[in-house]
This record gives sequence, C-alpha cells and structure tokens, in this order.
Amino acid sequence: MRLLHEAPLDPRSRFIRLVLSEKNLSFELREERSWERAPEFLTLNPAGETPVLREAGGLNVPGATVIAEYLEELYPEHSLMGGDAVSRVETRRLLGWFLDKLSREVTEALREEKFLKRVVYNAPPDVSVLRAASANLSHHLDYIAWLAEHRRWLGGERMTLVDLAAAAQLSVLDYLGSIEWPSSESEARGWYARMKSRPSMREILSERMSGVMPPRHYSDPDF
Amino acid sequence: MRLLHEAPLDPRSRFIRLVLSEKNLSFELREERSWERAPEFLTLNPAGETPVLREAGGLNVPGATVIAEYLEELYPEHSLMGGDAVSRVETRRLLGWFLDKLSREVTEALREEKFLKRVVYNAPPDVSVLRAASANLSHHLDYIAWLAEHRRWLGGERMTLVDLAAAAQLSVLDYLGSIEWPSSESEARGWYARMKSRPSMREILSERMSGVMPPRHYSDPDF
Repeated sequence: MRLLHEAPLDPRSRFIRLVLSEKNLSFELREERSWERAPEFLTLNPAGETPVLREAGGLNVPGATVIAEYLEELYPEHSLMGGDAVSRVETRRLLGWFLDKLSREVTEALREEKFLKRVVYNAPPDVSVLRAASANLSHHLDYIAWLAEHRRWLGGERMTLVDLAAAAQLSVLDYLGSIEWPSSESEARGWYARMKSRPSMREILSERMSGVMPPRHYSDPDF
Repeated sequence: MRLLHEAPLDPRSRFIRLVLSEKNLSFELREERSWERAPEFLTLNPAGETPVLREAGGLNVPGATVIAEYLEELYPEHSLMGGDAVSRVETRRLLGWFLDKLSREVTEALREEKFLKRVVYNAPPDVSVLRAASANLSHHLDYIAWLAEHRRWLGGERMTLVDLAAAAQLSVLDYLGSIEWPSSESEARGWYARMKSRPSMREILSERMSGVMPPRHYSDPDF
C-alpha cells in the first residue's frame, strides 16, 4: 500500500491527498512531526519537508511538486495538468504560485504563529508577523477572485492541480480562521464552495486538530 | 526567434540559458531590471520573476521550473531529466533543491547584499545577513561535495538539469567572491571544473557586470 508521510495543517500534504483521491488511488497516512527533524524522516527527504510518498515497491518520492509530476506521468489517463503545451505551462505556473508563493508569503507564517506556536512551542504569536501575512493574504484572495471570475476553474476550463493546490491552502487558512469571506455572490466563494463539495475534500474538512478548532462554517459547503 | 527575459546575476536566468544551450536551441537575451517591477514585465509574469521565455509564436513561459519542464516536453530527444521514474524523481528533487532551496537560503541574500545594494540601491551590505547566508552556503557546498563523491554527476550517472541548476548557482556565488574553494583534489571542485569547460558555460562566464568584478579564478576552468 502507498504510504503518505504528512504533517498536520500542512497545505502541501493536503494537496497531495487531494491529488491521490482525485486519481482514485488508495493510500495510508502517517503523521510526521516534521518540525522535529527526526533522522529517520531526513533519510526519506533530506530537505526535511512533508509530504513524502512511499511506494509499495520502495520508491521514495519527496516533495509536493515532485510527487504531483510523478503521479501525472504514472497515471496520465486521469490528467490534472491538461494535454497541450499552453495549458501545461499555465497549470505549472499557477501550481508554483499556489504551492510555493502563497505558502511562503502567507500560510507558513500563519501556521507557525496560530498553530505550531500554540500546540508545539507554547509561545505567543508575533502580531507583526500575523499582520504582514494577513496583508499578503488579501492580495492572494483578490487574485483567486480574478481567476474565478475569468475562468470556469482557476487554471482554465478544466479542474487541474491548480484548483487542488489553491483549495488545500484555503482549507488550512480557513481552519485557522484567517479568511474573511466576501459576500455569498462572489465568484471566489462560489469556486471554493464547489471544491468543498468534492469527495476528495470532504475527508480533509472532517478532521480536527487537538488544541485548535476551526470556525463553524469551515466544513460547510453552503457557507 | 526565442527571446529570454533575464536579469543580471540571476541564477535562475543562467540556469535556463544553460538548458537552452545544452539543447542546442538558439535564443536572444533581453535584460530585465526585475526589481523595478515594470508593468510590462508583470504582464509577462505576474510573479515578477525572471526568467521568462517568449516563444516566436507568442507563447509566454514564465519561471525557471516551468520553462525547464516545457523544454523537456518539447525536446525529449535531448533529455536532461532521465528516462525512468526513479531518475526523474531524483532529478526533480535536486532541481528543487538547487533552484529554490539554495536560492532562498543563500543566493538571493548574497546577490541582494553584494550586488543589488551596491549597483542599484547604493546602500551598504548588512553584515548579519552576509554571515547567515555564508553559513548556509557551507552546508550546501558540503552537500554538493557529497553528491560529487558518490555519483558521476550530481543527479546520477548522466548530466541532467541538476548539474545545470547547481552550476548556475555556483557561477553567481563565485562571481560575488563568496566561495572558498577546497583543495584542488576535491570532487566538488573537479565537478565544477568539468561544468566550467562546457561551451554552454563559457559564454556566461565571459560576462562582466559593471560595478562588480569577479575574482581572478572565476572563468578559469583550471582554477
């Protein structure tokens, strides 16, 4: 059986769970406390980052982007990338945007301040970091709204890795109570409601972390 | 003709120049002062980052990883990735390592402090930033040495995108005088000497930036 090493409220781990589910691939989960940098985990991924996919045959696939490309090549029949060069370029551009840029500018900081500091480090959040990350988040939400207004899905006419990466990020940020949702007519909200209804998202949205509870609307598709 | 929008001493731009040259693809260069965030450049890449490849037919390919994947798919006959799943996973893992992790932990900071601050911002370097980046660099050089001792090329038995990404980074760091090379018998030094001898690297190593000169050994393959 495939084993996915993941970390709690890690958007990249959630993204790969969504990819595996959308491709109808079964897997087991193993929680890694990646912030402890355990030597056994560093042998799986010297970068020390989740997720890492361990194949039944022993192949070790470390890192969200590497796993996504690997699964696309192994299961092209359920493509989440698009077939022609133009859509593959756009999928990969926005995958980098939502997986790396949004993580770096927003999610890593808010996860550290609102979750890890409370549950792991027992330290108060740094208000100036919260403020900077929230300001960055509002630009990212504007961009998601712009994409949702101009396209059926965020990457184009079909659902792709882009939607899964963006939904994984928003699910973490929403869990942490960091998103002020615009009115119910907004296209961004409509897109995220569609994502929340997918079976691949339902399981993720049903999980609760001990020590931090999400807002009431968190797992409700009609929020 | 292909047009590559690049920035001076940008390791990701240098990486794509190496990829294009190794695949025997001709291209023209256009210098972008990406730190100015000009609106025309932001329409090419909303992330505001170099490089961006502009195809003769009008297709716009933004970002080093996206360009590398695009060129691999378009010209599989000169593959720089490897053919089987195991080597493709390893190539992509180390590509992320040398393109993103090394940039984030070392090169972006040293380029800012030693080049942009001198040439663009007219400000003194921050010594504590220099010190932290140099400490990170020594770990990365150790890792390159370890890879060079255990494999013919950094990614495995064949030269791949990994070697081009690592060489692009080292060329920038060496230009800035940031690398203390170990003795001439070291495997890391031997690997970089081999890279410096390649025609794809010769042109890059012959360039000089006004305002900042490299150390004398910089472009010498027998350094």
